[in-house]
Amino acid sequence: MVSSNPTAQPRVNLHSDTATRPTEGMRKAIYDAEVGDEQAGEDPTAIRLQEKVAELLGKEAAVFLPSGTMCNEISYRVWCDHGDEIILEENSHALHYEVGGPGALAGVMTRTIKGTKGWFTADQVEALIRPKSRHMPRQKLVSVENTANMAGGTIWPLDTLKDVAGAARKHGMRVHMDGARLPNAVVASGISFAEFAGPCDSAWIDLSKGLGCPIGGVLAGSKDFIEECWRFKHQFGGALRQSGIVAAAGLYALDHHVERLADDHAHARRLAEGIVDVDGIVVDPASVETNMVFFDIAGTGITAPEFSRRLMVEHEVKISAVQPTVLRAVTYLGIEDPDIEFAVAAIRQVAMEA
Amino acid sequence: MVSSNPTAQPRVNLHSDTATRPTEGMRKAIYDAEVGDEQAGEDPTAIRLQEKVAELLGKEAAVFLPSGTMCNEISYRVWCDHGDEIILEENSHALHYEVGGPGALAGVMTRTIKGTKGWFTADQVEALIRPKSRHMPRQKLVSVENTANMAGGTIWPLDTLKDVAGAARKHGMRVHMDGARLPNAVVASGISFAEFAGPCDSAWIDLSKGLGCPIGGVLAGSKDFIEECWRFKHQFGGALRQSGIVAAAGLYALDHHVERLADDHAHARRLAEGIVDVDGIVVDPASVETNMVFFDIAGTGITAPEFSRRLMVEHEVKISAVQPTVLRAVTYLGIEDPDIEFAVAAIRQVAMEA
Amino acid sequence: MVSSNPTAQPRVNLHSDTATRPTEGMRKAIYDAEVGDEQAGEDPTAIRLQEKVAELLGKEAAVFLPSGTMCNEISYRVWCDHGDEIILEENSHALHYEVGGPGALAGVMTRTIKGTKGWFTADQVEALIRPKSRHMPRQKLVSVENTANMAGGTIWPLDTLKDVAGAARKHGMRVHMDGARLPNAVVASGISFAEFAGPCDSAWIDLSKGLGCPIGGVLAGSKDFIEECWRFKHQFGGALRQSGIVAAAGLYALDHHVERLADDHAHARRLAEGIVDVDGIVVDPASVETNMVFFDIAGTGITAPEFSRRLMVEHEVKISAVQPTVLRAVTYLGIEDPDIEFAVAAIRQVAMEA
Amino acid sequence: MVSSNPTAQPRVNLHSDTATRPTEGMRKAIYDAEVGDEQAGEDPTAIRLQEKVAELLGKEAAVFLPSGTMCNEISYRVWCDHGDEIILEENSHALHYEVGGPGALAGVMTRTIKGTKGWFTADQVEALIRPKSRHMPRQKLVSVENTANMAGGTIWPLDTLKDVAGAARKHGMRVHMDGARLPNAVVASGISFAEFAGPCDSAWIDLSKGLGCPIGGVLAGSKDFIEECWRFKHQFGGALRQSGIVAAAGLYALDHHVERLADDHAHARRLAEGIVDVDGIVVDPASVETNMVFFDIAGTGITAPEFSRRLMVEHEVKISAVQPTVLRAVTYLGIEDPDIEFAVAAIRQVAMEA
Repeated sequence: MVSSNPTAQPRVNLHSDTATRPTEGMRKAIYDAEVGDEQAGEDPTAIRLQEKVAELLGKEAAVFLPSGTMCNEISYRVWCDHGDEIILEENSHALHYEVGGPGALAGVMTRTIKGTKGWFTADQVEALIRPKSRHMPRQKLVSVENTANMAGGTIWPLDTLKDVAGAARKHGMRVHMDGARLPNAVVASGISFAEFAGPCDSAWIDLSKGLGCPIGGVLAGSKDFIEECWRFKHQFGGALRQSGIVAAAGLYALDHHVERLADDHAHARRLAEGIVDVDGIVVDPASVETNMVFFDIAGTGITAPEFSRRLMVEHEVKISAVQPTVLRAVTYLGIEDPDIEFAVAAIRQVAMEA
Repeated sequence: MVSSNPTAQPRVNLHSDTATRPTEGMRKAIYDAEVGDEQAGEDPTAIRLQEKVAELLGKEAAVFLPSGTMCNEISYRVWCDHGDEIILEENSHALHYEVGGPGALAGVMTRTIKGTKGWFTADQVEALIRPKSRHMPRQKLVSVENTANMAGGTIWPLDTLKDVAGAARKHGMRVHMDGARLPNAVVASGISFAEFAGPCDSAWIDLSKGLGCPIGGVLAGSKDFIEECWRFKHQFGGALRQSGIVAAAGLYALDHHVERLADDHAHARRLAEGIVDVDGIVVDPASVETNMVFFDIAGTGITAPEFSRRLMVEHEVKISAVQPTVLRAVTYLGIEDPDIEFAVAAIRQVAMEA
Repeated sequence: MVSSNPTAQPRVNLHSDTATRPTEGMRKAIYDAEVGDEQAGEDPTAIRLQEKVAELLGKEAAVFLPSGTMCNEISYRVWCDHGDEIILEENSHALHYEVGGPGALAGVMTRTIKGTKGWFTADQVEALIRPKSRHMPRQKLVSVENTANMAGGTIWPLDTLKDVAGAARKHGMRVHMDGARLPNAVVASGISFAEFAGPCDSAWIDLSKGLGCPIGGVLAGSKDFIEECWRFKHQFGGALRQSGIVAAAGLYALDHHVERLADDHAHARRLAEGIVDVDGIVVDPASVETNMVFFDIAGTGITAPEFSRRLMVEHEVKISAVQPTVLRAVTYLGIEDPDIEFAVAAIRQVAMEA
Repeated sequence: MVSSNPTAQPRVNLHSDTATRPTEGMRKAIYDAEVGDEQAGEDPTAIRLQEKVAELLGKEAAVFLPSGTMCNEISYRVWCDHGDEIILEENSHALHYEVGGPGALAGVMTRTIKGTKGWFTADQVEALIRPKSRHMPRQKLVSVENTANMAGGTIWPLDTLKDVAGAARKHGMRVHMDGARLPNAVVASGISFAEFAGPCDSAWIDLSKGLGCPIGGVLAGSKDFIEECWRFKHQFGGALRQSGIVAAAGLYALDHHVERLADDHAHARRLAEGIVDVDGIVVDPASVETNMVFFDIAGTGITAPEFSRRLMVEHEVKISAVQPTVLRAVTYLGIEDPDIEFAVAAIRQVAMEA
């Protein structure tokens, strides 16, 4: 039975890897954090985190921000003038889940490409290139998402990324990477953070998704870019004070929570395999590249929101509908084998009874 | 031989119906215009024009603006808050030829539909409807273009338009019509201005395209909407003084230049028929609904920009490339039968020599 | 008796020099205008007007725009990034009569100086200079207004302007001149257009105020600046088509209506002298530098709006209240000696009967 | 000797109360925090903090935000449309230290009042009221700052605040309170949080200033207002995940760090008294209402930046210049009697040797 308490939490929560809670070790790191006023450049922990991420991504500098959304929005603001155009995949996070920030905060136009598993090609970029004209928006940025959330947590092929970046640069555009789940891409592919970030002018990683931190993202780029980002960090209200308190979690996570993402990926694969034979469900375990499982329940005769509701009400399993007949399950730190088995059983039963 | 003078004008200019020049009758109407300061509500000619267009479109009120672009941009600004989303066809004028105004001035996000000859269906709108969410942009407006310029000057089927408007309203959205070439749609279809504007909350007609005026558009809607538009007319710098000088041309055009658009449509059809048999050119005369002819010259082995260049340099015929292998020819007041024959001959020759 | 017709016009309208109507000569110039599509660079009259104003102001280039407000707003947009700061006098037109355009369209902060007769000093600019800081808006522009409308149509002393511009440049700021009534300043002072515009990076003149044209302003600056302005002219909806129709009036006015501004100035001085001895009215004829008379009617015991209302209802004289006890009368082309005498008599009578 | 380490911290840091570091008890509360994903409404600690602040300020609801700047900027965005006008005191934080956010993010115009010790009167508001006009920005908000930082940490008289709010409402404006240091005002005046917030539609308190938390502010208002704020919290990138980690510090501070602000106020008064007799320094201990001391060192013959530099280099005392001859010292949790005595001695010596 599910409590009516609005903050009640499900028995197995596969809604998103944003549900991760700090581990004991991370809490200890937070407790011990050495801090100062980050706005005065006096927070040694925040500074260490920024330096560490800059080095990891192979960039000159980095800045700690309260969220991944702010990493995207500030990047768009810095790279573009109001009225300029950004090219991105049609299911990109920034288009759908940032409350219209690209238009509202950066004043940009967004031009979309229908991708393949979330990525697109240099030819697709080339096909959108505008001539120089007083009538047209200027094209300033190509923005990629790696892994691509709404495509199933898929990984950009490195060569494709390099080609896209090459096409962008050829036409005077910058390249930005939304790396909310870049650590997953790195662990699953064996390609390093720096290799993925290399073709990009700006790139960020989220600390509060697979890495399990409570708060924040770190955005990296050239020194000049990051200096500009600082201005907008202040303007947007993302300049904090003793940010070392949360930055400490980030440092801890980079030391302890990266390699273990492989477990999340194994769990996701296991979940997919556990429901592949269910009547009415279509899922391809081979398409599970990282920590997400998208499965189509059209064949069960009920809608995805209804399927999701039954999972929650009847089994205390939280898996969200992302399309009319598609659900998305996400694994993360804290989800263990028994949780997966429990979720598999719940899905099978809901499908059977549908 | 083409002069090197940058303001030199081609012998036959089918670049756009924006090239129309005021006729003798129109110049006389301008000369005789009764005027006052429109900002003080003292310009009787501007007031008459506004009243006439409001009545024509079946709306409560209307406002004279310096351009169609301002009609679109102010409408977007009034109907939407920064960060809201507008749904429109992927080749809409506002996306490509208004210098990013929707993002820059209204701060909106644009969501695109791949249409059929420039129009789209209620189902396509329904498929984009978002759930209520703190994460997502609010959906406020569906914007249609009639005729659809980049689809070939095509006309929205009235029932389709009504269905789209119904879907929009069902989800709390307004409907706006970019009627830059609405007079062409009216004359070609026999559907009245008011019938086309009926399903829309705001609609405008351009005076400086097929109607042949030098300047301006007139935007219509409810009294409250138009009152808000006046504030942005001032803010954008579109509030004029003795606007009767140009509004007089609009009144003249509505009296004298609407029915004759049928001639432009016949000319366009004739042009298409004149080149339908040319090797290397693909064009469908039946697809010419109004005053535009799009033809594909891929089979000639040269690119559209090169084809355009040769037409101009070798024949003083100006027809612009709008895609890598597609050119667009536009007919209008001032283009007569011999011009069409001259252009047909020029196109045939360039194709033959390519 | 005043008609209830909202477009009825007063017998003597001293509300603003925006009420000027085109003269017979100007109408003839409009009728004869050679035109083309200005967006294609094909309108020879608009081009000639732009070249003429550029030369007059001693700048490389100029662009014709539909209004002075658009001249200001586009300049602010080009010189500043969103979040930057503009310094201007606290009664500047852009702060009060452009519907918040500086914030809405350019996203700028405005920092005000209390001036002396509308102008301010280099020291006052220096006192506002900010240190470099991630917290503070960047200071990009000093914007001056010459003549200063709300200060009484007053003229910037040239040396003061040069000093202010020097201070601005020393701190990396540009200088912009709102020259809505720069022709009045030129004629009254004997200082040339180019001398006044010299210290400024951008400057414009209004055609629809003292010069008597129906529509438009012309903004001048460097070639690069004007090229950027063209992009915003398109974006804001200020790009017209056969703009020669109205540009012709501008060319005519520059040839025929500049020197005659001296008459307007004499009329204004005469009006001030005509009421200087009235009980309850305070006015200083010596302060009338150009075509405006500000007079304080506090001593009559009624408010300025009431005084204004009585002038209109009882005498068909339109003079507007601009402060609780202050009215502003403006002279212009079309206001002749008898109009001034009539207005003087009306003011005297309203004051006497108050 | 001061280390060259850029993150070295001074011996006595009176730069700002933003330098406060979490106490042992606060770190323990953070360590023990019960958390969840705040975006899913699953963080019980953040919810408790929001409820507690809403109750404290007498409002229906509240939202936790990463900074006080975001509290201001989101409030401006919610209360105003782009182009609207905000009235505030000329030294307000939002004008000078938020990187132009009001213009950049909310698109507003700012209209300033020269206050008395940071506060202003209903008459001053009345004097700025605009008539209804298509030309003028709409006036939507009066924003007050309590305590007023740049006026010396001064407290708004409650009746004055009520009168200002009354004037604002009479003209259709909302009232917002920047309560970065509202706890100081409450403790120093004996007026409750709810009494101060009562006349305001929105009000916030900063957790990271006198209250000693590492991160955040809490903004309160009506349910509808807060629901709108949530949309912008997401858009600006201020939506966090397990925000309970830092919200726990806020709850701890509200229980343990409010009353003790009286100590900070005593320390500030003591500092002022300690330097009141120094030759070349002008300071009025009676003007020290809360935790700030502004003192003028003009009489010493050196500038404030130089005075500040010497304090730091020669004494490791950090006190910042805020005007050419004025320094500001701020006391806070962690600054004890000996620190004050040390700072007094340092100031005396620098003044003596100047």
